[in-house]
Amino acid sequence: MEDQFRRILLKLSFTEGKAAVCARLFAENSRDGVYSHGLNRFHVFAQNVQEGIVDAEAEPECISANGSIEHWDGKFGIGMYNATMAMQKAIELAKQTGLGLVTLKNNNHWMRGGTYGWQSANQGCIAICTTNTIANMPPWGGIDPTLGNNPIVIAVPRNNGEHVVLDMAISQYSYGALYEHKLKEKKLAVPGGYDEDGKLSDDPASIFRSQRALPIGFWKGSALSLVIDVLLCSLTGGRTTKQITDDAKERGVTQLFFCIYRKQLYDHLADEVISYARSSRPVKKGEKINYPGENTLATRRRNLAHGIPVNEKIWNEVLQM
Amino acid sequence: MEDQFRRILLKLSFTEGKAAVCARLFAENSRDGVYSHGLNRFHVFAQNVQEGIVDAEAEPECISANGSIEHWDGKFGIGMYNATMAMQKAIELAKQTGLGLVTLKNNNHWMRGGTYGWQSANQGCIAICTTNTIANMPPWGGIDPTLGNNPIVIAVPRNNGEHVVLDMAISQYSYGALYEHKLKEKKLAVPGGYDEDGKLSDDPASIFRSQRALPIGFWKGSALSLVIDVLLCSLTGGRTTKQITDDAKERGVTQLFFCIYRKQLYDHLADEVISYARSSRPVKKGEKINYPGENTLATRRRNLAHGIPVNEKIWNEVLQM
Repeated sequence: MEDQFRRILLKLSFTEGKAAVCARLFAENSRDGVYSHGLNRFHVFAQNVQEGIVDAEAEPECISANGSIEHWDGKFGIGMYNATMAMQKAIELAKQTGLGLVTLKNNNHWMRGGTYGWQSANQGCIAICTTNTIANMPPWGGIDPTLGNNPIVIAVPRNNGEHVVLDMAISQYSYGALYEHKLKEKKLAVPGGYDEDGKLSDDPASIFRSQRALPIGFWKGSALSLVIDVLLCSLTGGRTTKQITDDAKERGVTQLFFCIYRKQLYDHLADEVISYARSSRPVKKGEKINYPGENTLATRRRNLAHGIPVNEKIWNEVLQM
Repeated sequence: MEDQFRRILLKLSFTEGKAAVCARLFAENSRDGVYSHGLNRFHVFAQNVQEGIVDAEAEPECISANGSIEHWDGKFGIGMYNATMAMQKAIELAKQTGLGLVTLKNNNHWMRGGTYGWQSANQGCIAICTTNTIANMPPWGGIDPTLGNNPIVIAVPRNNGEHVVLDMAISQYSYGALYEHKLKEKKLAVPGGYDEDGKLSDDPASIFRSQRALPIGFWKGSALSLVIDVLLCSLTGGRTTKQITDDAKERGVTQLFFCIYRKQLYDHLADEVISYARSSRPVKKGEKINYPGENTLATRRRNLAHGIPVNEKIWNEVLQM
């Protein structure tokens, strides 16, 4: 899969270095079970490059560097390539000084946020990352979407490699997940937004019609999304959700990568937190309580052993590209 | 109110310095409308001091200091006093180096998290703070509470003093809020937990019986709570939610105070985010969409102009103390 992606990206005039990073990350996203940001997203990415939404020739530029902080401009380049660079800078700064903060404005979609959490945890660093997005949720008390679902990544490394990695958008369901449920004519497990009468709904079709997706925790997720956009843009001068939304197509978002490095973490306490959470009696007999990142790792191991399941149609299209 | 609190704390053998900080913060919490952590909490705090849960004589100790990072031990002392000190250290480090990270283990309840967000924003610093707590929410898929509601504070200063300050626990409702609804025999606005049959419920009495309060965003809040406990304790060696819960009375929690300082923030972008959020048509005609911190400031101004409303019984008890 990685070889195919690399071949296509080189055809799109990517440099060897950029093609290698992007091909690896798209393949890893599918390997880890995040198909929506792996194989299934690849053709959209290629199209964005061809349409100039993503400028594959742009190189990120360091605007200012001071101690543990660097501010970068992504120049509307390749989102996942720039984000990988920014995360790596934050890791290196943290390894030197204990902390590293790298911001990245004018970047494009970073695809799977978890990518950068794993990148950091694999190098022994705690990470907190976030990005703003196009508006896709109404604020609490509002009808029209004027907030992004601004994903948050928090990663904590563990000695055994079974890192705790949270990768969470602030909407209860992504529009991708709503769409999947709609196609399968499945109800949502919990309310995912409002119907056209303003009632909480578990019907994906109604939520598509109302465009009123639900933030996690109602007023709480709404407030969290807003403060993230304020923090990112006040700090960097980067584009706000408003500016991104005015463009109609999502591009030029604002991102932050923060790392903490401590040589010896208290690894046994991570184990303690997880095993205590698991000591809760399960709602459904025999079901296991998971920590964030656990399912990713299980899927990774399964897919590495048995191959990555693909949508045949999409895979064949990629082979033809 | 502040004078009364100071008088009582001095009677409890607080030093002048500690009495001044605690009296001011308890009064400010009521002034800002957070009555549950102001006047209405004061007698519990005083009792905790008398019972030795809070050691008023303990002084926090710096365990290690390296560049922008300091690790402190709160020695089971006065939570809000230690937290104020830690936040101030983080602010000072950030003013010197751009970043400041101060951790505080073995601390007691910090009362209102927003206190530290305002403290930082008033000094021109962005802040992110968090703490773990006693277990009070089940993990996703579990019945028994084995996660804390681990509050998160995010503050971004604005030039006009109308700072954006999020102060959010990860449970949809605190047990305090559930109790208030129960007393008034009021249903919750949104589901706040599960009833004894495992069904989502807006009935506070049922949730008290099941002890299954709901994290924001179901599996998402559950994962967020867990990763915060892991981050705090892996980094500091501080007590986990398990250890805090084993003690039965909440004490000796683990906290983190992180500051970012940049001389010139892009203040107009904070305004832009807020006015864009407000451009969403309101669900209820004439109702305003608020940013986090806005209601606090409005209540503060109202209470400063007209006096702080108090529960007469509680106020009279304080006067007798």
